Amino acid sequence: MLDLNSDLGEGFGIWRLGDDEALLDVVTSANVACGFHAGDPSTMRRVCVAAAARGVAVGAQVSYRDLAGFGRRFIDVEPTVLADEVLYQIGALDACARAAGTSVSYVKPHGALYNTVVHHESQAAAVVDGVRAFGDLPVLGLPGSQLLATAETAGLIAVGEAFADRGYTPEGTLVPRGVPGALLTDTKAVVERALRLAESGEIVAVDGTVMASAARSLCVHGDTPGAVAHARAVRAALADAGIQLAPFAAA
Amino acid sequence: MLDLNSDLGEGFGIWRLGDDEALLDVVTSANVACGFHAGDPSTMRRVCVAAAARGVAVGAQVSYRDLAGFGRRFIDVEPTVLADEVLYQIGALDACARAAGTSVSYVKPHGALYNTVVHHESQAAAVVDGVRAFGDLPVLGLPGSQLLATAETAGLIAVGEAFADRGYTPEGTLVPRGVPGALLTDTKAVVERALRLAESGEIVAVDGTVMASAARSLCVHGDTPGAVAHARAVRAALADAGIQLAPFAAA
Amino acid sequence: MLDLNSDLGEGFGIWRLGDDEALLDVVTSANVACGFHAGDPSTMRRVCVAAAARGVAVGAQVSYRDLAGFGRRFIDVEPTVLADEVLYQIGALDACARAAGTSVSYVKPHGALYNTVVHHESQAAAVVDGVRAFGDLPVLGLPGSQLLATAETAGLIAVGEAFADRGYTPEGTLVPRGVPGALLTDTKAVVERALRLAESGEIVAVDGTVMASAARSLCVHGDTPGAVAHARAVRAALADAGIQLAPFAAA
Amino acid sequence: MLDLNSDLGEGFGIWRLGDDEALLDVVTSANVACGFHAGDPSTMRRVCVAAAARGVAVGAQVSYRDLAGFGRRFIDVEPTVLADEVLYQIGALDACARAAGTSVSYVKPHGALYNTVVHHESQAAAVVDGVRAFGDLPVLGLPGSQLLATAETAGLIAVGEAFADRGYTPEGTLVPRGVPGALLTDTKAVVERALRLAESGEIVAVDGTVMASAARSLCVHGDTPGAVAHARAVRAALADAGIQLAPFAAA
Repeated sequence: MLDLNSDLGEGFGIWRLGDDEALLDVVTSANVACGFHAGDPSTMRRVCVAAAARGVAVGAQVSYRDLAGFGRRFIDVEPTVLADEVLYQIGALDACARAAGTSVSYVKPHGALYNTVVHHESQAAAVVDGVRAFGDLPVLGLPGSQLLATAETAGLIAVGEAFADRGYTPEGTLVPRGVPGALLTDTKAVVERALRLAESGEIVAVDGTVMASAARSLCVHGDTPGAVAHARAVRAALADAGIQLAPFAAA
Repeated sequence: MLDLNSDLGEGFGIWRLGDDEALLDVVTSANVACGFHAGDPSTMRRVCVAAAARGVAVGAQVSYRDLAGFGRRFIDVEPTVLADEVLYQIGALDACARAAGTSVSYVKPHGALYNTVVHHESQAAAVVDGVRAFGDLPVLGLPGSQLLATAETAGLIAVGEAFADRGYTPEGTLVPRGVPGALLTDTKAVVERALRLAESGEIVAVDGTVMASAARSLCVHGDTPGAVAHARAVRAALADAGIQLAPFAAA
Repeated sequence: MLDLNSDLGEGFGIWRLGDDEALLDVVTSANVACGFHAGDPSTMRRVCVAAAARGVAVGAQVSYRDLAGFGRRFIDVEPTVLADEVLYQIGALDACARAAGTSVSYVKPHGALYNTVVHHESQAAAVVDGVRAFGDLPVLGLPGSQLLATAETAGLIAVGEAFADRGYTPEGTLVPRGVPGALLTDTKAVVERALRLAESGEIVAVDGTVMASAARSLCVHGDTPGAVAHARAVRAALADAGIQLAPFAAA
Repeated sequence: MLDLNSDLGEGFGIWRLGDDEALLDVVTSANVACGFHAGDPSTMRRVCVAAAARGVAVGAQVSYRDLAGFGRRFIDVEPTVLADEVLYQIGALDACARAAGTSVSYVKPHGALYNTVVHHESQAAAVVDGVRAFGDLPVLGLPGSQLLATAETAGLIAVGEAFADRGYTPEGTLVPRGVPGALLTDTKAVVERALRLAESGEIVAVDGTVMASAARSLCVHGDTPGAVAHARAVRAALADAGIQLAPFAAA
């Protein structure tokens, strides 16, 4: 059994990013932008309705307050303020989700916040505080991150994710963008990544090292036509292999 | 029995407006800004905590998206977008309220939106749609307004409010700001307004006309030291007269 | 001689809208978004550099403060505030333009502001006040509009524009969107519109009525692939006909 | 001869911070917020008019894009984006200043950006790039900072400032807030700081160490009634001592 997640609803007002409809036909969990890096209320509600119609779980993709930077710049925000911002974003999305007959069933940080809470203790704790202020929702993040450790200590369900189209080092970290092997561009390689993870719980690094992975969710992207094609191929291959696809968190 | 309401949490980031603490000791219902005209998440949460500690009901004061104009300019926003914005704001505040042990128990439009939905049918319907998408919360507004009529038709509880320190015409409308009699500046007059409303359900116009009022809530202001003094005098006089003060809506 | 203008730089942060590079190869005047409805500083500067490299004139496309609505909703902003906002936007863009070796050479309102100042006297006067506070720049707008009348009275050069791909009524107004004939979808019709205007100063209405036009600039769009193709066809046809294309305003 | 500078125009929309009018009667240089951490166009223009009327120099107080955090949080923005944001802010303020009959005559970073460019090479270079893209304006900052070093290397006039009401360590750095001696709360001590700097170019540290200072400007604050009183006392004492007060940069 595997969960497929993707970042969705990343437009704002007139602007669009990625193909939400196409991805919603592929994934089992939708990380929905909540208005701080992207996501106006109408986009949020529309994505929730489309997700609910497909049985796709809705997750709150919480971010720094940074529309101009799409949440991709680290902000040294006070932890108490960050916790309140996380709470606010989850609440806003949950209202949209409930109006669509579902609810927020997990939380995933976005962009620079995602990367920061891999190691930043007080911001990781702030995200967990914000989640717990809302309710004991599962948290989706990088395996081995400070965020997941803090979430588990706080009694939350902590779920690790792997990336369908990113190269891994033998240490289990991502090959940095710009370095050869950072991106899997071959559909076959992407599909093998997904199958191997689903069937054996393993990820193969760029040098061939086979690593055990605790990831219960696989992140696919939809911001390029090629990415959508990869995501569809992953979905199809998993289905062909008889692997059940299901959200890791129930609404 | 009477409800006293006031607009609270109207700061943003470093900026403050009015004396939230002082007003929370006076009112029974707090109209809390939700981030669109004022109200960052930390301010919202702090006001909710302070309100909950005093048994003051929390209402969502929803607004046009207009921080630069404090929600005081009419925006010709599409009704569907407005409904989604109302839903978003209520959800965000409700998360803050629930973290404080209470919940949003009513909705009141702010500023230009308040004035617009007195007569603007599609925006009034949009506010009601946004409220209903969240849940069947009572709506607080101007007696006789399109908003309250639409809310009632939709099955919501519609509650009218009167203003403690504003002059009324014999037709029951407010004397426009800038016209003599627009503001009650004398504490005695403000207190009499409150007592008359609470005891007899009546409001006296600037020309002495006595009018029946359906208002179940009295709006007091806190944006000037004089306004806070008025609000305190109103609270004290109502208590002295043995009139029970209670929120019109239960959390 | 004719000027071709188009709305450019309408992205924000990560988001893009339209094909700026393609349009800059077609037009002689670029209406550049200044940050209020679209246009972050880096986008503004990049468009200015690209415009300067091609000898395309840079105009400030000023807007209501409304990123979420892309400046397409009327806002009942006070005229003094609007004038200051216009001044701010022109100044910000002019700094970007000067860094690129050019300067802002005209002003055109965007979206809802464009439509409002066709008839709204105090907002039209506010736009003119904002322009004059910056300097006596030409104003581009709808022929016969309040804006152009006010600008001329104030001593500014007022330039009317026609639309390459919109249908006109026999009264000289645009056929409303949604009504048959609102859009010229046939390349041949779009090209004829441009040639007729350039050669004879005439526009042909949907019913065949031939109208004299004072338009010295023709607005082309670039928000769809079809629009870009139309714009290119217009440019090529005008060149083939030996019509000189030049900005109406010198930098 | 000495310059007195202060941060002004730090409101936004309905919100106010500090007493601009009072400070403008004291200082010779006004660091005016440009809309990124505070400062709507109308506030900016009003401050410029009031500054021009008093012969106070107008400086652009540029900031990270962060209204919610008042520019007090470090943002890891890309240097090229930061340079463009600095350019945008200067241009916007310069338009307001020119409409008031003056112009921007220097640039000072605000808040977290001020503190960051003390040591952060690429952001310091970005601020300098932004300034130079506008024109060769003097830069005001912390003596010994990376910003001033980079500005000088680039050929800009770099001006150091001292703080009237902050304690200094014997190493010449500020005593951190919260540590005893961080703030000079006694008017006499504040006045002595100003006189000593103006007459001897010296600052006395908390332990009595006398240090030479290259500061040509003294920063006074106006965000509390006490701060305004201090600023006035400084101005009066300098005048009594026959020290000429003048902007370090001419408009």
